[in-house]
Amino acid sequence: MNETLVLKGNIIFTKNTDKFEIYNNAFIVSIDGKVKGIYKELPKEYSNCKIRNYGNKLIIPSFVDLHLHASQFLQCGMGMTKQLLEWLNDYTFDLEKEFQNEEFAKEVYTKFADKLVDSGTLRACIFASSSTKGTEILFEILKKKGIGAYIGKVNMDRNAPNFIIESTEESIKGTEYLIKKYKNEKLVKPIITPRFAPTSTDELLEKLGELTKEYSLPVQSHLSENINEINWVKELFPDSKYYLDVYDKYYLFGHTKTAMAHGIHLSDEELNIIKGKNVILVHCPDSNINVRSGIMPLRKYLNMGIPIGLGSDIAGGHKIALNEAMVRAIQLSKLLSINNPEYKPLTIPEVFYLGTKGGGNFFGKTGSFEEGYLFDALVIEDDKLIADRYSLEDRLERFLYLGDDRNIIARYVEGKEIKQI
Amino acid sequence: MNETLVLKGNIIFTKNTDKFEIYNNAFIVSIDGKVKGIYKELPKEYSNCKIRNYGNKLIIPSFVDLHLHASQFLQCGMGMTKQLLEWLNDYTFDLEKEFQNEEFAKEVYTKFADKLVDSGTLRACIFASSSTKGTEILFEILKKKGIGAYIGKVNMDRNAPNFIIESTEESIKGTEYLIKKYKNEKLVKPIITPRFAPTSTDELLEKLGELTKEYSLPVQSHLSENINEINWVKELFPDSKYYLDVYDKYYLFGHTKTAMAHGIHLSDEELNIIKGKNVILVHCPDSNINVRSGIMPLRKYLNMGIPIGLGSDIAGGHKIALNEAMVRAIQLSKLLSINNPEYKPLTIPEVFYLGTKGGGNFFGKTGSFEEGYLFDALVIEDDKLIADRYSLEDRLERFLYLGDDRNIIARYVEGKEIKQI
Repeated sequence: MNETLVLKGNIIFTKNTDKFEIYNNAFIVSIDGKVKGIYKELPKEYSNCKIRNYGNKLIIPSFVDLHLHASQFLQCGMGMTKQLLEWLNDYTFDLEKEFQNEEFAKEVYTKFADKLVDSGTLRACIFASSSTKGTEILFEILKKKGIGAYIGKVNMDRNAPNFIIESTEESIKGTEYLIKKYKNEKLVKPIITPRFAPTSTDELLEKLGELTKEYSLPVQSHLSENINEINWVKELFPDSKYYLDVYDKYYLFGHTKTAMAHGIHLSDEELNIIKGKNVILVHCPDSNINVRSGIMPLRKYLNMGIPIGLGSDIAGGHKIALNEAMVRAIQLSKLLSINNPEYKPLTIPEVFYLGTKGGGNFFGKTGSFEEGYLFDALVIEDDKLIADRYSLEDRLERFLYLGDDRNIIARYVEGKEIKQI
Repeated sequence: MNETLVLKGNIIFTKNTDKFEIYNNAFIVSIDGKVKGIYKELPKEYSNCKIRNYGNKLIIPSFVDLHLHASQFLQCGMGMTKQLLEWLNDYTFDLEKEFQNEEFAKEVYTKFADKLVDSGTLRACIFASSSTKGTEILFEILKKKGIGAYIGKVNMDRNAPNFIIESTEESIKGTEYLIKKYKNEKLVKPIITPRFAPTSTDELLEKLGELTKEYSLPVQSHLSENINEINWVKELFPDSKYYLDVYDKYYLFGHTKTAMAHGIHLSDEELNIIKGKNVILVHCPDSNINVRSGIMPLRKYLNMGIPIGLGSDIAGGHKIALNEAMVRAIQLSKLLSINNPEYKPLTIPEVFYLGTKGGGNFFGKTGSFEEGYLFDALVIEDDKLIADRYSLEDRLERFLYLGDDRNIIARYVEGKEIKQI
């Protein structure tokens, strides 16, 4: 094929958490969807290629959201002062049920996908609902969009309202149906998704572990989000020393790559176990505040070398745009630092890394513009007054703090431009 | 004149912090810019009036921002991980200087005003810069916009870079010039604005107090934002027992109505003094996090009956839209409640009240739709899927959490629609 794409503009990304890599007014070349290189002057072999010249605009890696619930999209920003259980009962469960209705699923998931892509998230790890049919609709919609995603049918066989749980058999059957149908897709793929330990019987977890092994699938779930939840897991699974052991016992914790949302309340022993496994923790700062879970000691985790990504956690979090999660992560780290001076606040390159390459690792080589990385990118336009006056780093920071979908004027996944409808 | 305006829609506002007043599908009548009443059926005497029918949309009081710096508008969302002094030196001071340039002031203040009004803030207490000419330009721009504002030329005669401080005489002369020119304006009026105690000599404060008295003007400044600042004030003004005494001594603290930004670190004695004065404290949650000032114990202040308004504090805060300040106020109150169960998190009606009627009191009767209140309003449009499914309260909450200027389809100040250019 050798499909070559050449973009020109101000290129910014992170290789690691230390600093931005900045290429002022440079060319980036992508061949067959992968970054070939960044050049101050375009090498001769590309001189016949058409150049997409974005002038003084910014070209950055697109956002990677490692945790959100598509079926909670409509309830974003509602019931935010309720207690968790009341919130689930009044808003979440009834809504989840409706994704058994195909028309409803199609309408809501289309809006969800539009908003996600508008906001610059072009890779995401998504919880759908327990409905197999509804989840299949989400696969089809995101396939059409052309973005990268892992989508999980949500597995639950206890401890939730009857109208959204399934029998263990149904839950596994639906999951395997979707695995078989989508496992060879290039961009939108299945992921094993027990909602969380308390809504799963041992039998369900065991069978999900078998599917994980048989099909070599990734896993996503929730871990240690709040104290009551942790105590409940202890009661339900008295044989497990730690919460994570419940998953680990059944091949659902880092035997294949695993994204665990939250992980706020973890002992050093648990953190050391996590570090030795193929597990990434997903920091969802807005959600952590909204449902009063507490503040993740992110600096400590980074110092320990625990892999971390960012999540909007729609609808515990209320903003789907991942730059909002980056800002809130900084804000929480600042609050934590006031009383814990050993926890230095996060920097802009750090949160940018977490929301691009950090989470992007879960999808392979994406979230950076190093050679060989998938070319997933956004083109950012800001006000001329700002562009003329400030550095590229300042302009990027401003976009993260204030920008919205209106500032994103182009989106690329693996070298293909995503056309908004 | 008897200019009568009749709007139809879903009317929501707060009389107090307890709950929303909700009128589904009702008429609101404004005569000569003031609310006459809300009616399920339109009284006969208005039957000849043309009705602006907003159908299923929401009609709410517009936002009141009691603290922001217009001259810091460009630097919003930049340098946010710097230390305060470094931030001031690298971003704020240089930028403030440029408002001595009329063309620059016109260009930036026009963008500022557009964004403020777009975002639904139709009353604001604004710090301009120390430039008299620049401040005059801001007066003219906001007059043309047709919104309500107090604008302060910023008074400083020490402890800031030479290129933005003035001599005491110049500072007073420019202030009096603007007072005389604008004191009889209906909507955009002068306010006495010492930047804060440390940048003022006693002589400057004394003369500002005289102007306050002579022209019966309101006052705005900063108070007890962070611990270092408080200690600095103690050093500079060793005779003052409390920070607030510095202002109080010179007729600048609640002798006329006074808006004091922040007030995070206050003793019970200070709070009791404030309570007995004509002073409103302005809570600026994003700013408090961004510059690591700490979390205002807002619940305690509300329990004590201290008047409180909300501020975006551009550019310590990064979002000019006041609904963002409402959300962040709730989020901070939740964080505070985790370790201090006696501080109950804020509710939606509480923050809505603070951002409308609470701050609105500073402008007279505005921020509510009770009879006799100035008719300052926004019309909010949301997604049909949301409008069909959820209650008016849920829809309003969703707008506060997720909405932006695109959801605001009409803006009224004293019964006149503000036309966006």
